[in-house]
Amino acid sequence: MIKNFRVFEAALFLLICLLANIAFAQTKEPKYIMVIHGGAGTLTRKNMSAEKEAAYRAALTLALQTGYNAIKSGKPSLDAVEATIHTLEDNPLFNAGKGAVFTHEGRNEMDAAIMDGKTLKAGAVAGVTVIKNPISAARAVMEKSEHVMMAGPGAEAFARQAGLTIVNPKYFYTKERWDGLQKALREDSVKAVLDHGSKKSMLLGTLNRDNKFGTVGAVALDLAGNLAAGTSTGGMTNKKYGRIGDSPIIGAGTYANNATAGISCTGWGEFYIRNVVAYDISAMMEYKHMTVADAAHAAIGKVGAMGGDGGLIALDARGHMAMPFNTEGMYRGTVTEDGKIEVFIFKKD
Amino acid sequence: MIKNFRVFEAALFLLICLLANIAFAQTKEPKYIMVIHGGAGTLTRKNMSAEKEAAYRAALTLALQTGYNAIKSGKPSLDAVEATIHTLEDNPLFNAGKGAVFTHEGRNEMDAAIMDGKTLKAGAVAGVTVIKNPISAARAVMEKSEHVMMAGPGAEAFARQAGLTIVNPKYFYTKERWDGLQKALREDSVKAVLDHGSKKSMLLGTLNRDNKFGTVGAVALDLAGNLAAGTSTGGMTNKKYGRIGDSPIIGAGTYANNATAGISCTGWGEFYIRNVVAYDISAMMEYKHMTVADAAHAAIGKVGAMGGDGGLIALDARGHMAMPFNTEGMYRGTVTEDGKIEVFIFKKD
Repeated sequence: MIKNFRVFEAALFLLICLLANIAFAQTKEPKYIMVIHGGAGTLTRKNMSAEKEAAYRAALTLALQTGYNAIKSGKPSLDAVEATIHTLEDNPLFNAGKGAVFTHEGRNEMDAAIMDGKTLKAGAVAGVTVIKNPISAARAVMEKSEHVMMAGPGAEAFARQAGLTIVNPKYFYTKERWDGLQKALREDSVKAVLDHGSKKSMLLGTLNRDNKFGTVGAVALDLAGNLAAGTSTGGMTNKKYGRIGDSPIIGAGTYANNATAGISCTGWGEFYIRNVVAYDISAMMEYKHMTVADAAHAAIGKVGAMGGDGGLIALDARGHMAMPFNTEGMYRGTVTEDGKIEVFIFKKD
Repeated sequence: MIKNFRVFEAALFLLICLLANIAFAQTKEPKYIMVIHGGAGTLTRKNMSAEKEAAYRAALTLALQTGYNAIKSGKPSLDAVEATIHTLEDNPLFNAGKGAVFTHEGRNEMDAAIMDGKTLKAGAVAGVTVIKNPISAARAVMEKSEHVMMAGPGAEAFARQAGLTIVNPKYFYTKERWDGLQKALREDSVKAVLDHGSKKSMLLGTLNRDNKFGTVGAVALDLAGNLAAGTSTGGMTNKKYGRIGDSPIIGAGTYANNATAGISCTGWGEFYIRNVVAYDISAMMEYKHMTVADAAHAAIGKVGAMGGDGGLIALDARGHMAMPFNTEGMYRGTVTEDGKIEVFIFKKD
């Protein structure tokens, strides 16, 4: 009798272990291998047509599929990030490459950065106007020069020497972005009338929150366990004075370190620079042992507390990710190691 | 008898307390209110004439006296940093403002940044060629625009509107710097012959370690307890491709936060960008509760481990400072709240 009871006890114990294991397997977090964003802003369901929404979802899906294919075929995360961002740069829906917004002078001036989490090497370009894919120029700066950051005509001369595709600046023209500039210019002149007599406001320029968003970015984790992060942007509509935002600044808009995470930011760049947001996430993970999700949320919290808005994506070397934002929405998506793609636009998607 | 013994005991105790107090007062760390640097590099006693050494020591002393006077008269740390850096920018001995080195094309392209530790506001300019005092342009970006960073002709247009002193680019010509460029160009052509047939090396550019140094910077702590940090540089001799170094990058070459420290870096900029050095010191202080000295040394250690060299200055809100470097020397100096000025050049000064 006692013996039978012992057998029963042992069987019950094994059964409990088995059930617990199944439950654990079912709730096990998926391993993400790529996270992307296509910009944050006042994106609400009622302000977006079904057609436009479908086009964005298709573009995000294509970008993620491209990155997934690169990683699954054994390519390094840098290749996956570059190829993924190409699809977003080549699509006029996003404010990067083809689709970049216009500056005050009616030009398209683009910025991009990329970082290798294995070596902590990085490259960036700012204010480039003739390079078809600025993310590839950033990668060339990283791999084919001693430098990290190049700007303007010098960066373009370098890109030509590095063999990148150079286009006529007209390539970047899109009617939607041109109309956006005209609208911003009209608002500027209204503002100038309202501000008549105040020299300060002339210097302060346009404060149009929606002009600041639309950057694209990707973070990838390859089969060798290496992280890479990249960001590409057309900057702000009606941008003046050669303004540089956070995207091409290593530590602010872009950062990657295998020991912590890869990060790409989008939003009101000035607040991301002042908070050194991308590196701050890495620092909180390294020095305070925070998870990538906790660190990413804390970083967005700091931006918000200072009055800034936007979002970011972060992916650590174990495949945990976070995509926090404090705007109405953010174009974003993920793909797991088993190829499951998910894309989101709104807060409650 | 017992009573007398008690009195003797009490007297002995008081004497010990008094002596301990004197000893404590004597070893008490001085409270620093400003730390400056004028660049790090291969500075050795045998390579420097007595005249040149005296000129550098006089210039560093003047800079510190200027900052001290500003702080003692109750001005904010931002004013002290700006006024101090003006003296260094206006002196042809330093690679900033008058005295800036020449780019490959024979131009003087300057970068500068400033940050307010109280508000975490920041401003920076990159690649400017006609602004007499780039540090003031950085401050104007911070205070008179919505932006943090501006580059090239756009930054210059803004500086004109902000009422800054604009000069003919010839103002920045100095024979010593021009000769430095000619030397670098000759070394370039020798290198080109040696590298014949390798496209890669053409893209890699000149690797002349000594061309990278000479930035100036200051960190100040004012009577209200607020920190500010600023950095100004002429960049690299024979600089190509619109390269931007760490000086104008908030988080890399310049950072200030009352909660931690103000930091200004000098050295091989690319390594400072990749390590996000200035903000990393702040992060180690905030998240790991390290002292400013420990954090500053750890940060220079990371730069060195990666193959980079240079130095930095850091000052916390309690008046503790550090001036680590891993080069042969660094032009540097400090002033305490009681006006004691010390300047140093070599490793063992």
